[in-house]
Amino acid sequence: MAENTRILFKSRPTGWVDASHFEIAKGPVAEPASNEVLIRNIFMSLDPYMRGRMREQKSYTPGFELGQVLQAGAVGEVIVSNDASLAVGDLVEGRLGWETYSVAKATNVNKVDGNVGSLSHYLGVLGMPSMTAWVGLRNIGQPKPGETVYVSAASGAVGQVAGQIAKMQGCHVAGSAGSDAKVAYIRDELGFDTAFNYQTVASLGDALAQACPKGIDVYFENVGGAMLDAVLLKVNPYARIVACGMISQYNLEKPEGVKNLGTIVGNKVKMQGFIVSDHMDLKAEFMAEMSGWLATGKVKYREDITQGIENAPSAFIGMLKGKNFGKKIVRIAAE
Amino acid sequence: MAENTRILFKSRPTGWVDASHFEIAKGPVAEPASNEVLIRNIFMSLDPYMRGRMREQKSYTPGFELGQVLQAGAVGEVIVSNDASLAVGDLVEGRLGWETYSVAKATNVNKVDGNVGSLSHYLGVLGMPSMTAWVGLRNIGQPKPGETVYVSAASGAVGQVAGQIAKMQGCHVAGSAGSDAKVAYIRDELGFDTAFNYQTVASLGDALAQACPKGIDVYFENVGGAMLDAVLLKVNPYARIVACGMISQYNLEKPEGVKNLGTIVGNKVKMQGFIVSDHMDLKAEFMAEMSGWLATGKVKYREDITQGIENAPSAFIGMLKGKNFGKKIVRIAAE
Repeated sequence: MAENTRILFKSRPTGWVDASHFEIAKGPVAEPASNEVLIRNIFMSLDPYMRGRMREQKSYTPGFELGQVLQAGAVGEVIVSNDASLAVGDLVEGRLGWETYSVAKATNVNKVDGNVGSLSHYLGVLGMPSMTAWVGLRNIGQPKPGETVYVSAASGAVGQVAGQIAKMQGCHVAGSAGSDAKVAYIRDELGFDTAFNYQTVASLGDALAQACPKGIDVYFENVGGAMLDAVLLKVNPYARIVACGMISQYNLEKPEGVKNLGTIVGNKVKMQGFIVSDHMDLKAEFMAEMSGWLATGKVKYREDITQGIENAPSAFIGMLKGKNFGKKIVRIAAE
Repeated sequence: MAENTRILFKSRPTGWVDASHFEIAKGPVAEPASNEVLIRNIFMSLDPYMRGRMREQKSYTPGFELGQVLQAGAVGEVIVSNDASLAVGDLVEGRLGWETYSVAKATNVNKVDGNVGSLSHYLGVLGMPSMTAWVGLRNIGQPKPGETVYVSAASGAVGQVAGQIAKMQGCHVAGSAGSDAKVAYIRDELGFDTAFNYQTVASLGDALAQACPKGIDVYFENVGGAMLDAVLLKVNPYARIVACGMISQYNLEKPEGVKNLGTIVGNKVKMQGFIVSDHMDLKAEFMAEMSGWLATGKVKYREDITQGIENAPSAFIGMLKGKNFGKKIVRIAAE
């Protein structure tokens, strides 16, 4: 059998992640024990929250362990099964490793239907990032028709879906992204009402005022920092801030200070964090709804696929700098 | 008839408020028109939110107008009535002026029962600040028995009540205040489980860790700034931050930056602002419950009373600096 190529967590970053924090290791493929399966990984997911798992301090998911293989959502094919529930050839997704072959308990992976579009969809538009957008709007944002919804990192894995759902709900939807191409994509392809390049506008406040002339009712927060500060000056009474992530802060040794929190009191704003894995009771409902939207073209989804497990570290580093255009995926092997 | 002594809003502060922002004016007492009453003011309330009304930018209440009399909650006696609903001698509370006599529409004031304790109670423990604590815990904080509730500005008009309600609900209640006497009061008189002087502790983080060994489930936020930042590092999963006020920031030209908002995502925290005046449908329920607690001694309440309308500006300035010890009240006249 082929060897297993694995990306290990070599050292803990304090600021920006670089290549020195990873190590590529090659070795034998492990043998699955009873009730386990061996999976040939095909796609893996790179997500901003993983930066949090590189910290020593507690986060909502356990930290990555130094010297161990990094973890990621992945989809692959069962090639050895020691569990009656899964057969060789089954396609599964689960929290697996940055590696070409993973051993997993059969109960820790989910069978997926290989006939619904690309297998990579299970890591994005039919997976955790998309469900994050869906749950965040459903439970916290709760946009009403006619309200203004603003999405940062709007061409990203979560933002794309958040904006399209809000649009279907009859909202005025504004988005921002970090390149003119991304801005054109969310406006022209995804149907956002308006969008701007946060990297090149002279003033975030002015850009928000222009994009959201009636103020902001729902902010789908993916970036934090200066953007959040600017949004806080544009919130309407009873605005909801869906605190999904704050990627602008993840690589800073000292986070930026947010100065305008006083408007939360005056405008009776609700800002609430959430983690999609708390809401797995909604997964079937999400899958049914999103599969329908995807099949009918009501939701589009762009992926940014890097080829080869060896390139996963540079793909991750690039994603943290906003270099990806769409959901970041690594192709590990052919179907 | 006596002349009317009024405190006018002379100029707009950008940082700390000082005496130059006020002007004392004396003049004739106004005549009430039809459906209006003339009120001899007895007590008026000074509250931190008034600092917000001194700003030009929009707040949740209209800004004070330059050259006009400042507004405040007050209680007084009707001395002329041009409305059938109120009689001379009735005691009323409402949003009146920093002045010895106010004219008000009869529909804009509420009759109060002069036999339940001090009339000043209607500005504090039976009034807006206390109802703020009650509503904030009821609708946002929602503390459960055994949870840890932390209250900043805990000897203040709102904080005293918030802590005592949380204690009645079976919580571990911690508080902070700005003097050793205040700390002793909230711990020894009000029954907080633990309290500290935020002005003298070496580290807010260490003080919070000691006061809240199981972390913070509900933070009743009255101060903002560095305290909020320290709390954000101690929040438990699903913590609620009742964003009632941020007095530490009101007099800063540039607010302090809050760096640790990332924990809102990871710990699935809800931080929500509110304004008590949105919840007047609950007033009867609040009054019934709080009157009962007050009558049976389950809630105690300390007031800090300044004598004389002329001293209202200095009392207000002192309150913004935390010099008051208890709910700040100005006595304008004898009952």
